[in-house]
Amino acid sequence: MPNPRKRHAFIVSDRTGLTAEAMAHSLLSQFPGIDFNIETFTFVDSTDKALELVRRCNLIRTQTGTAPLIFLTMVNDELREHFNQSDTEVFDLFHTFIGPMEKHLGVKSSHTIGKSHGVKDEKAYTSRIAAVHFALQTDDGMETDHYGQADLIIVGVSRCGKTPASLYLSLHYGLYVSNYPLTSHELSSRELPQALLPFRDKLFALTIDPFRLLQIRQQRYQGSTYSTAATCQREIAQAESLFRSHQVPYLNTTRMSVEEIGAMIVNRTKAHNRL
Amino acid sequence: MPNPRKRHAFIVSDRTGLTAEAMAHSLLSQFPGIDFNIETFTFVDSTDKALELVRRCNLIRTQTGTAPLIFLTMVNDELREHFNQSDTEVFDLFHTFIGPMEKHLGVKSSHTIGKSHGVKDEKAYTSRIAAVHFALQTDDGMETDHYGQADLIIVGVSRCGKTPASLYLSLHYGLYVSNYPLTSHELSSRELPQALLPFRDKLFALTIDPFRLLQIRQQRYQGSTYSTAATCQREIAQAESLFRSHQVPYLNTTRMSVEEIGAMIVNRTKAHNRL
Repeated sequence: MPNPRKRHAFIVSDRTGLTAEAMAHSLLSQFPGIDFNIETFTFVDSTDKALELVRRCNLIRTQTGTAPLIFLTMVNDELREHFNQSDTEVFDLFHTFIGPMEKHLGVKSSHTIGKSHGVKDEKAYTSRIAAVHFALQTDDGMETDHYGQADLIIVGVSRCGKTPASLYLSLHYGLYVSNYPLTSHELSSRELPQALLPFRDKLFALTIDPFRLLQIRQQRYQGSTYSTAATCQREIAQAESLFRSHQVPYLNTTRMSVEEIGAMIVNRTKAHNRL
Repeated sequence: MPNPRKRHAFIVSDRTGLTAEAMAHSLLSQFPGIDFNIETFTFVDSTDKALELVRRCNLIRTQTGTAPLIFLTMVNDELREHFNQSDTEVFDLFHTFIGPMEKHLGVKSSHTIGKSHGVKDEKAYTSRIAAVHFALQTDDGMETDHYGQADLIIVGVSRCGKTPASLYLSLHYGLYVSNYPLTSHELSSRELPQALLPFRDKLFALTIDPFRLLQIRQQRYQGSTYSTAATCQREIAQAESLFRSHQVPYLNTTRMSVEEIGAMIVNRTKAHNRL
């Protein structure tokens, strides 16, 4: 008997599958009552690979009574056809829009394989790599004499998520992002650290729920003053008060993923994607 | 007079817009003959913001003779309606599939705002952050005594893209990725470095076109032996020969973006997404 609360889903792409994955997860998250077993198949770029997947679909249908949902982003028409001809429900994330776009724009599409994640040009690639190296070089308060080059300087208490956010912003948007940890001592002074004063316009602060911070700190440094509830509460209270009194925009990251933090910072600072 | 070779495109989302951006860029890249002016609007989560965008569309139509194409990922039905009622071409990347999915699955969708980029659960978030810290800790040949914990160890000559690939894999897939630079001296010995020998199964190598490597190295270290054509050519030839003789799988990254490199490594090593 098929169980309607349990379903298989295949994400299938002839390239990286990144777009298909993001879209499929977003769509599937709209059906929280169903437990999806999601498998991703990337670089499905030959008839053999496509037919192998169609066979797997059929096997799952035989075993469970329902075929997997297939989320497809495939540029190659011939390979797409193998899935359309199979007896499964195909959500063609890419091609669904190509026809209407051709009609609207009055030109045929090129049917070339996913350029969106390719190297647009070498200049963009190089500046992105340079941005990553800049983020590493100026991670965690290092080399503050390079702040003149920074697009953004992320500040916050230790372990509130500055480093992942900086790296994500550099990798994804090509931004030059430094991060500076506010120490207990600096927080007690109620003043912005000297190194940051000339760059107030570049500052963006992260904050976090003190209890969540405590959990994170305890995972690595159990037993030190640094990872007590009192320290976490005091540091967060002082940090938020400092951000308010110096008009540093800040974001509470407690329930956010790195992608959300990154997109939110770009949205709020109007930092320009350098790519 | 409208110019059919120049068009505006708006990417509009009530959340991060990351999925919408990836999809829209992928779709637009299929029309290389048209010069698109692409603007992204994220966190469009109120009637005011939606109506402001509809006004911008109308203004562009008045000025250029054609309205922008709108690529929409919006969960809120009311806000979506503002765009559907406007006189522009809307490609509703998200909702287009929700109806057919509801029909196929036999249940209504929850209409909750994009969970896909949210923190799925705290455990996943924590392991991703831990993965980033592991990548930083074992970047560039540091702390090789932690290789036991690594899912993957990326090897290659200096400046072939190991660090961005490692960080991307840790951020995006939650993998524990170290990277180890092969020095000129190690390459001449034709042997795998001692530190790598116990972990041969975890090795994945990157290589790059020597001329491209030369360009990258010259940008930072002009004038040194390190950044001469002869050095780049010799190092790459020796590295590739080393990878072949020790059966280390390798990838030429010359024309690839960080996302492609990451997805390709996961595809080829079958490394499991830890998230």
